[in-house]
Amino acid sequence: MYYLGLDIGGTTIKAGIIDGANHVLEARKAPTVVDDLKGFISKLAELIRDFQKSTAIDAIGIGVPGLRSSKTHEIVTSPNIPCLKNVNLEQLVADQVHLKVVSENDANAGAYAEFVCGAGLGLQHLAYLTLGTGLGSGLVLNGSLYTGTSGYGGEFGHTVINPEGRLCGCGKRGCIETVASATGMVMTAVEKLKTARSGLLHEVPRPLTAEKIYDAAVGGDETAREVFAETARWLGIACANLINLLNLEMIVIGGGVMASGELLLGNAHEVARRYAFAPSFAGCQIVQSKLWPDAGMIGAALLARDR
Amino acid sequence: MYYLGLDIGGTTIKAGIIDGANHVLEARKAPTVVDDLKGFISKLAELIRDFQKSTAIDAIGIGVPGLRSSKTHEIVTSPNIPCLKNVNLEQLVADQVHLKVVSENDANAGAYAEFVCGAGLGLQHLAYLTLGTGLGSGLVLNGSLYTGTSGYGGEFGHTVINPEGRLCGCGKRGCIETVASATGMVMTAVEKLKTARSGLLHEVPRPLTAEKIYDAAVGGDETAREVFAETARWLGIACANLINLLNLEMIVIGGGVMASGELLLGNAHEVARRYAFAPSFAGCQIVQSKLWPDAGMIGAALLARDR
Repeated sequence: MYYLGLDIGGTTIKAGIIDGANHVLEARKAPTVVDDLKGFISKLAELIRDFQKSTAIDAIGIGVPGLRSSKTHEIVTSPNIPCLKNVNLEQLVADQVHLKVVSENDANAGAYAEFVCGAGLGLQHLAYLTLGTGLGSGLVLNGSLYTGTSGYGGEFGHTVINPEGRLCGCGKRGCIETVASATGMVMTAVEKLKTARSGLLHEVPRPLTAEKIYDAAVGGDETAREVFAETARWLGIACANLINLLNLEMIVIGGGVMASGELLLGNAHEVARRYAFAPSFAGCQIVQSKLWPDAGMIGAALLARDR
Repeated sequence: MYYLGLDIGGTTIKAGIIDGANHVLEARKAPTVVDDLKGFISKLAELIRDFQKSTAIDAIGIGVPGLRSSKTHEIVTSPNIPCLKNVNLEQLVADQVHLKVVSENDANAGAYAEFVCGAGLGLQHLAYLTLGTGLGSGLVLNGSLYTGTSGYGGEFGHTVINPEGRLCGCGKRGCIETVASATGMVMTAVEKLKTARSGLLHEVPRPLTAEKIYDAAVGGDETAREVFAETARWLGIACANLINLLNLEMIVIGGGVMASGELLLGNAHEVARRYAFAPSFAGCQIVQSKLWPDAGMIGAALLARDR
């Protein structure tokens, strides 16, 4: 049996086929059409048919960066893909390719992948966080993907950790996403550079990115190191909040920012230890994703199989 | 069948028997022994035997303000009852009275009661918050009491909402409990009174309490009204965090502070509406507890029956 997973990003669709052993057999990329639903669906159908030329696909899973209703199966809203507003993506794609199609929030799909065949294999309670442009997250509780009353659960990036903090893309102030994400790191760097007199980070070509900040930190730049320390502090407090509320066994962290490895994770771990209850912290590992950057794609394929 | 529920507070034990229809047949109170385990257990046994004179009890449930391990069944720590440190309370009480005894965190017990026969009857996903000296909380997810990996889950009061905020009894800074609780309200009032020139609240006999602040607010005192507005703002943001993370159907709020009713809840509801995702907020009611102040006691008895 072969399952196709599609991970829809704001600019790129990642697609891959997994086999019965949860291995990725073949993967491709395509640009995302964001503002034209008909074009969006055509692109997906074309991509699917390309895979079908070489593989008999049994079902398709689609991870979407937005809220998916578990009641109507519609994508209710997807800020970065405006054409997906109150759209039954499963039905529209199934109409094109005549296969079973399931959809899910992309970070929920990632959490499911880490649970089934990634860092959280064999565990019952975990959170998956991806630090990229935003902060995506998904929960596995009591051995199942937790999506809540209507399927919208798991939006940890939009819980408030600092009400006097930065404006978030969602319109609120102080969401965790505003500080613990690649975008948040760049904003932290820009703030710190206003007062830092000199250093590598001043000379880095603009626009600033989390990757450039990482390179500067590794190169010994003090400001860049402070950006990592501050990001780790927020990430650590955020992890402690999850640990105290949900008494998790594991927090799995993926996303582009995690390429920085221990520079972020080591400090975040130490902060979480100070902020969480000792018995709850003792039972929780904080680890890097095993499946990133493919977790969302693999999870979507697994949900096509298991749902 | 008759079940005895014991809700252990820092100063008082509340005990009551429920019948098969979840009604409280008979309730009593006794002082809590906090610093002597032997005395603590003797007091419980005496209380239980008193009930047994008139009723054949089938099992006993005990709600404890502390962390209870679901693995060892021990109370790991209970800040207000220091003698309960790594104590298998279930076993010690069972040895005295030769009945089935179960224990649980008191707010978890309260959440279970609201779920089985209170405000959340028939729902699948709810949080129960009690605003008293601290902020207790418990979760029901997917139709079961959620306690996490080791039984320590549900400690929402000790999630950080304002890292530059007040010191909490737990040693951290900015826990929700420091602002959304009776203690938090008094601290907010004390802060505001430093700059408020005059008003009812200046003349209220000390020590200040949430109840006196409420009376002053009802009497038209501007400072007291500001205390309620600020508390409601924190409570509303806290509710929005729960809604975005867990996509709940209901948040049930109990505790002494809720005697103030709409003065707190109305504003908190409005703030939560602004801070939560619209589709998630639309699916969640925020309501007053139906069972408070007996929720913990009833929940403990129900757990004695159902676990």
